[in-house]
Amino acid sequence: MILTVTLNTALDITYRVPALRPHAEHRVTGVTERPGGKGLNVARVLAALGHEVTVTGFAGGTTGRVVRDGLQGLTGVTDALIPVTGTTRRTVAVVDERTGDTTRLNEPGPVITPAEWSAFQEAYEGLLAGAQAVALCGSLPPGVPVGAYAGLVRTARAAGIPVLLDTSGEPLRRAVAARPDLIKPNADELAELTGSHEPLRATQDARRRGARSVVASLGPEGLVAATPEGRWRATPPARLSGNPTGAGDSAVAGLLSGLVDRLPWPQTLARAVALSAATILSPAAGEFDRAAYEELVGRVAVTGEVSAA
Amino acid sequence: MILTVTLNTALDITYRVPALRPHAEHRVTGVTERPGGKGLNVARVLAALGHEVTVTGFAGGTTGRVVRDGLQGLTGVTDALIPVTGTTRRTVAVVDERTGDTTRLNEPGPVITPAEWSAFQEAYEGLLAGAQAVALCGSLPPGVPVGAYAGLVRTARAAGIPVLLDTSGEPLRRAVAARPDLIKPNADELAELTGSHEPLRATQDARRRGARSVVASLGPEGLVAATPEGRWRATPPARLSGNPTGAGDSAVAGLLSGLVDRLPWPQTLARAVALSAATILSPAAGEFDRAAYEELVGRVAVTGEVSAA
Repeated sequence: MILTVTLNTALDITYRVPALRPHAEHRVTGVTERPGGKGLNVARVLAALGHEVTVTGFAGGTTGRVVRDGLQGLTGVTDALIPVTGTTRRTVAVVDERTGDTTRLNEPGPVITPAEWSAFQEAYEGLLAGAQAVALCGSLPPGVPVGAYAGLVRTARAAGIPVLLDTSGEPLRRAVAARPDLIKPNADELAELTGSHEPLRATQDARRRGARSVVASLGPEGLVAATPEGRWRATPPARLSGNPTGAGDSAVAGLLSGLVDRLPWPQTLARAVALSAATILSPAAGEFDRAAYEELVGRVAVTGEVSAA
Repeated sequence: MILTVTLNTALDITYRVPALRPHAEHRVTGVTERPGGKGLNVARVLAALGHEVTVTGFAGGTTGRVVRDGLQGLTGVTDALIPVTGTTRRTVAVVDERTGDTTRLNEPGPVITPAEWSAFQEAYEGLLAGAQAVALCGSLPPGVPVGAYAGLVRTARAAGIPVLLDTSGEPLRRAVAARPDLIKPNADELAELTGSHEPLRATQDARRRGARSVVASLGPEGLVAATPEGRWRATPPARLSGNPTGAGDSAVAGLLSGLVDRLPWPQTLARAVALSAATILSPAAGEFDRAAYEELVGRVAVTGEVSAA
């Protein structure tokens, strides 16, 4: 079982409008909603690849109930979310049908009490016992200490479970020092962590700060990886046009999938890039196009060098 | 008891953002939500004025439950909403804190089945028996026939209950022909109904089309009324700055309040203008400032002429 942690789960709502005009009134022509937050998105992709996944984090209130109801419908996903008294946040993505661009509005999330945070930590330790790998994903809701991920990384390492971290800002900086197995920053997050806008240099620098391996997502240019086993660059076969929503989460799912399947890095990176590309190509935001994935995975260009033993 | 009908109830969500930038990601700094839809807003103001109000219309799904929970907390408001299998819509108002401007996103609402529409019509007839007046407010959800309000006007008239109508477009055009006692279009709705952009002419024209009385809301210029008893113009004492959300619904509440209190038209119009102004002056969208209302109601300028008997 792969465990994904989403401390700030969300009900993701997507609105389609003919054209978004600030300060005007809009009739929404399409409404979709589904469970969200990075770890839940990662779980959905992993389950679609055939992995057993358990999701944990927090859920509460009316929107929390809708999120949990939505998880019921996902084969291969086990709901181990911790109930809280606050209300799970909504995110609203407004898609302008004229341009295809998306405007996002993210609620901050419920305030987590110290007792709820303690209950989570206890449940997390129990869940780790049955996990092949764990992913810690996304932002922290109010009330959760900024060092939360650092503590969760240490707990996973003490249990001998490989831990992937996908977050940003100060929570990332602190958790990197706790020596996670893998981090997957995007270009901005990596630059914020290291102060360098040069990805090859920055991935090496992030390793020196504590991450065992670093896979940075560089948008259309694919992934760049710095690991103890070597350094690689993985690039999609063609420039893709589509909706990038969820592409980063699909890349995380690809990395976890390769990790638990004990693939060598080049194959793992190819899986992550192909899943990311197949997510951009899918008409539904955050879903991936399975046929595109299967066609692309053999065509990802991976170049690099293996470390001297 | 005053009955208000809201066929397309809503959960009104307000987001505050530091500045709205299309195609960007925003962290929402403030979230408020409350029961909405014009008839529910009118009921809230009527109850605050001391009237007993019953609200009917449709509510369903998770958001319908939140709307009904919210109504529980309103003293003087009785919930007689009809349950439906669809989900009550949300509206999202995004307030740009830099400019104070609001961008609105309105979901279309649940599809109402023929059986649900029949159940509503039956309940409506029963509720009319105990009503002093009825207000039919807002848009029609999908599935409700475009002639719905025309039928509801006829039922109220057959029962001898005064009926106020506040809607727009084709549902307004059809219902006017059914001879409602009072309609309250804004300038755009009145122009769409009559083809005239000259409010004095257009209010007279709307009367010829079937409305017994017409009170048009002209934004900062107040109200203009054409009735069998005479014609008036009611103007707020000063140019107001604030949030116009709900000002029209407060005007409807003032008109209903004056109607059931059997006030002469000039006092009724003054009440409607003062409530509308006190809503603009309130910091909370859709609420009215009671002290401002009490101070303003004696200072509304009403000019006009009584009809020859």
